[in-house]
Amino acid sequence: MSEFDTTLPSIRQVQTLISDKQEVELKLVTDDLLVGRILWQDHDCICLVDQYEQKTLIWRRGLVYLKLKS
Amino acid sequence: MSEFDTTLPSIRQVQTLISDKQEVELKLVTDDLLVGRILWQDHDCICLVDQYEQKTLIWRRGLVYLKLKS
Amino acid sequence: MSEFDTTLPSIRQVQTLISDKQEVELKLVTDDLLVGRILWQDHDCICLVDQYEQKTLIWRRGLVYLKLKS
Amino acid sequence: MSEFDTTLPSIRQVQTLISDKQEVELKLVTDDLLVGRILWQDHDCICLVDQYEQKTLIWRRGLVYLKLKS
Amino acid sequence: MSEFDTTLPSIRQVQTLISDKQEVELKLVTDDLLVGRILWQDHDCICLVDQYEQKTLIWRRGLVYLKLKS
Amino acid sequence: MSEFDTTLPSIRQVQTLISDKQEVELKLVTDDLLVGRILWQDHDCICLVDQYEQKTLIWRRGLVYLKLKS
Repeated sequence: MSEFDTTLPSIRQVQTLISDKQEVELKLVTDDLLVGRILWQDHDCICLVDQYEQKTLIWRRGLVYLKLKS
Repeated sequence: MSEFDTTLPSIRQVQTLISDKQEVELKLVTDDLLVGRILWQDHDCICLVDQYEQKTLIWRRGLVYLKLKS
Repeated sequence: MSEFDTTLPSIRQVQTLISDKQEVELKLVTDDLLVGRILWQDHDCICLVDQYEQKTLIWRRGLVYLKLKS
Repeated sequence: MSEFDTTLPSIRQVQTLISDKQEVELKLVTDDLLVGRILWQDHDCICLVDQYEQKTLIWRRGLVYLKLKS
Repeated sequence: MSEFDTTLPSIRQVQTLISDKQEVELKLVTDDLLVGRILWQDHDCICLVDQYEQKTLIWRRGLVYLKLKS
Repeated sequence: MSEFDTTLPSIRQVQTLISDKQEVELKLVTDDLLVGRILWQDHDCICLVDQYEQKTLIWRRGLVYLKLKS
């Protein structure tokens, strides 16, 4: 992942989740499960905001999977 | 893995699993074992869908192994 | 992350936290949660200082997420 | 590991194990220990087959060590 | 970290710790906490020596954080 | 570590351990501690042999630290 390629399906999928203000679950390498809406993404990070408007900057290295919150 | 090389046996194997809608088990670095069919793959991610049509976007970094579901 | 790109939103966000002397929580791959102010960042590391003026040099590889201390 | 260099001793060693249908133990980052014969390797993965002919596609990222099964 | 850039603040900081024979704590991905003085660093490793003059070669990949021993 | 640079101190140190048939302890990311002599190293791996002449091929990714066996 030496470039942030905005044409990649996975990058575009996250971009759609941002536009839709979709609530998601993010599983991290530490086994933490964070819940919230994604505010933005860049080459290194994803920024999540939870229901209390608390923001979390997550490094991509730490991401394992993303699910839509059902 | 600086390129997404679609001629690689492992990438083609996953591509075949997508076409065949084959059910698989994916072991992740967090020790989670996810079960479902692979919908698509790109340079960064594999997208899995389970029997309840819930989709999971899994970062390749988090993948450990894949088995056919027996 | 082959370059330290200071125009990246995530890098600039950390830069703002440094200027604001904002207290943060840093979650690490070892599941440690460090609290303090960020003093500086470079390509490889983030330097944190806690309330006792003890400094910690954290390798980016080890970072999972950052939250503002509430 | 930006190239799959087939002249590397470690890559050639695995190639020999494939030809010899040698049974091996593979330790993974999740602490799993898989046993079987290696069928093939490429830049990203090693494919293992166990005694019940079940195949496992293992990402190199997840590999820790390999021993001959004694 | 494709180059060992000796002008980086974090690399220079470690260089200063070497000159000062400063005692440090190194936290590793395995959650080990090693204590000693850093003897040298290169692109791949940091070499630590403890109070019994036992040397440990630590791969950078395994480093999480460094604190001055108080 | 995009090249296997044999002039690096850490690579040369391992080369010396090979020549000296020095017994070492290798700590791995899985928290395993392997003991033996290093037979060879290449870009991707280190090959260890224990006192029963059992060989283990260890991927560099999995290495955390090396100590001389005391």
